[in-house]
Amino acid sequence: MRAAIFNGPRRIDVGDRPGPAIAAPTDAIVRVVLGCVCGSDLWYYRGDSLHELGPIGHEFIGVIEEVGSEADTLAKGDLVVAPFTYSDGTCPHCLAGWPSNCANGGSFGNHGIDGGQGEAVRVPLAGTTLVKVPGSGHSDETMRSLVALSDVMCTGHHAAVSGGVKPGMVVAVVGDGAVGLCAMIAAKRLGAGRIVALSRHPARQALAREFGATDIVAERGEAATEAIMEMTGGIGVDAALECVGTNESMATAFGIARPGSVVGAIGAPHDVVVPINTVIFRNVGLRGGVSPARRYLPELMDDVLAGRINPGRVFDFETDLNGIAEAYAAMDERRAIKSLVRIGAI
Amino acid sequence: MRAAIFNGPRRIDVGDRPGPAIAAPTDAIVRVVLGCVCGSDLWYYRGDSLHELGPIGHEFIGVIEEVGSEADTLAKGDLVVAPFTYSDGTCPHCLAGWPSNCANGGSFGNHGIDGGQGEAVRVPLAGTTLVKVPGSGHSDETMRSLVALSDVMCTGHHAAVSGGVKPGMVVAVVGDGAVGLCAMIAAKRLGAGRIVALSRHPARQALAREFGATDIVAERGEAATEAIMEMTGGIGVDAALECVGTNESMATAFGIARPGSVVGAIGAPHDVVVPINTVIFRNVGLRGGVSPARRYLPELMDDVLAGRINPGRVFDFETDLNGIAEAYAAMDERRAIKSLVRIGAI
Repeated sequence: MRAAIFNGPRRIDVGDRPGPAIAAPTDAIVRVVLGCVCGSDLWYYRGDSLHELGPIGHEFIGVIEEVGSEADTLAKGDLVVAPFTYSDGTCPHCLAGWPSNCANGGSFGNHGIDGGQGEAVRVPLAGTTLVKVPGSGHSDETMRSLVALSDVMCTGHHAAVSGGVKPGMVVAVVGDGAVGLCAMIAAKRLGAGRIVALSRHPARQALAREFGATDIVAERGEAATEAIMEMTGGIGVDAALECVGTNESMATAFGIARPGSVVGAIGAPHDVVVPINTVIFRNVGLRGGVSPARRYLPELMDDVLAGRINPGRVFDFETDLNGIAEAYAAMDERRAIKSLVRIGAI
Repeated sequence: MRAAIFNGPRRIDVGDRPGPAIAAPTDAIVRVVLGCVCGSDLWYYRGDSLHELGPIGHEFIGVIEEVGSEADTLAKGDLVVAPFTYSDGTCPHCLAGWPSNCANGGSFGNHGIDGGQGEAVRVPLAGTTLVKVPGSGHSDETMRSLVALSDVMCTGHHAAVSGGVKPGMVVAVVGDGAVGLCAMIAAKRLGAGRIVALSRHPARQALAREFGATDIVAERGEAATEAIMEMTGGIGVDAALECVGTNESMATAFGIARPGSVVGAIGAPHDVVVPINTVIFRNVGLRGGVSPARRYLPELMDDVLAGRINPGRVFDFETDLNGIAEAYAAMDERRAIKSLVRIGAI
């Protein structure tokens, strides 16, 4: 089969790989329909993080091709969404609601597991990982939103849940990437009364407003903190959502968070120092991390299928496997918010 | 009046200060009955933190001597507990439940405000700060527990609340100082099923058991982490309470916290690096800080007066104002868990 292959920083190629086969009774083989590129893929693309050479991509939806004997809740022909990590659903961490920390789990597109940017994927622990999409004949708009559930929307939702967003709250989202934009959808969905988007990019500002942002702050760093403190009468926001992963964005989130609030953080951290004095002397908490996407998927899928949320709007660039290198480059150069990769027919 | 005076690191003297007088209509004058020394007082005592020269001490109970015209919920003769910070009860932070972050508040024994280690204190914003103790003729045991409500018990409780302690949970308390010991009382009070005390000091271990600890771990650092991971079947604890404020104790707390849990931290931080990779990749949160003691005081006072909790047991050294230097030295040298200072008759 054909699949995207990571051959080193800025070297993403399309190559041939062995077609996957059932290796364990809990496996399923999924023929990928849509994949996409994650902001976190850019870290190894740019050489800022290490990644094994080989298959890549952890977000995909597709059609079940074959199931192992113990994955019999799934059947050939089912349309499924894969959360970006696989999990057994039975370990203590899964039972506590943290499938992305499954004791027996892992993620796609690394450590010998097929990537979602390829024609097919062997999914371990498939019965407790994949989520079947009900119905058929879904529109392309719906399909785009379904693949957004694989990671980006669940991750934005995790930022909002981690920050404790509740009805009527004033929420600020630090970061206007695809995850930050999805965090705005999530904040609105959870009832936030005011959503402040930190964004200086006109196209992203427009999408932020479409997703529920009520205010845009184009300043950065200290100036952003000052602007938001002024907007909130010196109080700070009820929840600051950190959706970048840099030290500056973390400092901004802590700088605008009101005493007693929690910074919801999902950005993969790079040289981030948590301002412990703000934690202790202003009682600002920190929660977040790798989204337990499998837990959130059913409720978010309901909203996608009912048309209440439309996270697929974050895709503003699309290509097929042949264009995979350009899918990365467009995001790296910030020409695209997020790149969709059309891989197979449904 | 006579009061303890900070004259520089390891120089605590008793000196004369002007007797306090009402300066604002919201003030009250309290004649101090019992004061004590806080673990956080040791930071400036040792020269590890800066502190203005002058009056010190932020924990006290006493009797109302005089009230300003707007502090009329209090009356001369009332026995009151002072939370270690004063607050107006009406600013946005107070209304949200965070009186220790009051926009118009402050703490005792600093910045020109009388300290609790002295014969009398002018209490700003007295009507919204001081909590009247019902009844009269309280035993010495009860009085000791009441002064423990001024800070140490409320701070231990804040660690447990911040860590999200709930019935049946496995809780570990990192730190066997007075706050850590009170965090054990709080964890038991909130229904923890198993309480692991990290302690290597026999007298503190005994008190920990009295307060509800079910397990003692005498190891430190990596060895402590390994011991607790083994005790919990590799899962980690449901809540880790960090009650020291050093980098090693924070690392231990994060090392033993299970995915999805929250480290409840109240130690004044000194060179603490929050392990951000554990936050993100293991979904371990961090909450805590300066306890909103005024919020917690009523419920904890009920429990003290009913004899359900006895935090005054942390005092294992006592003296009067003349012995204030020794009260600090005993704690500094770890000869005492916490020093009580008897200042006036009730």
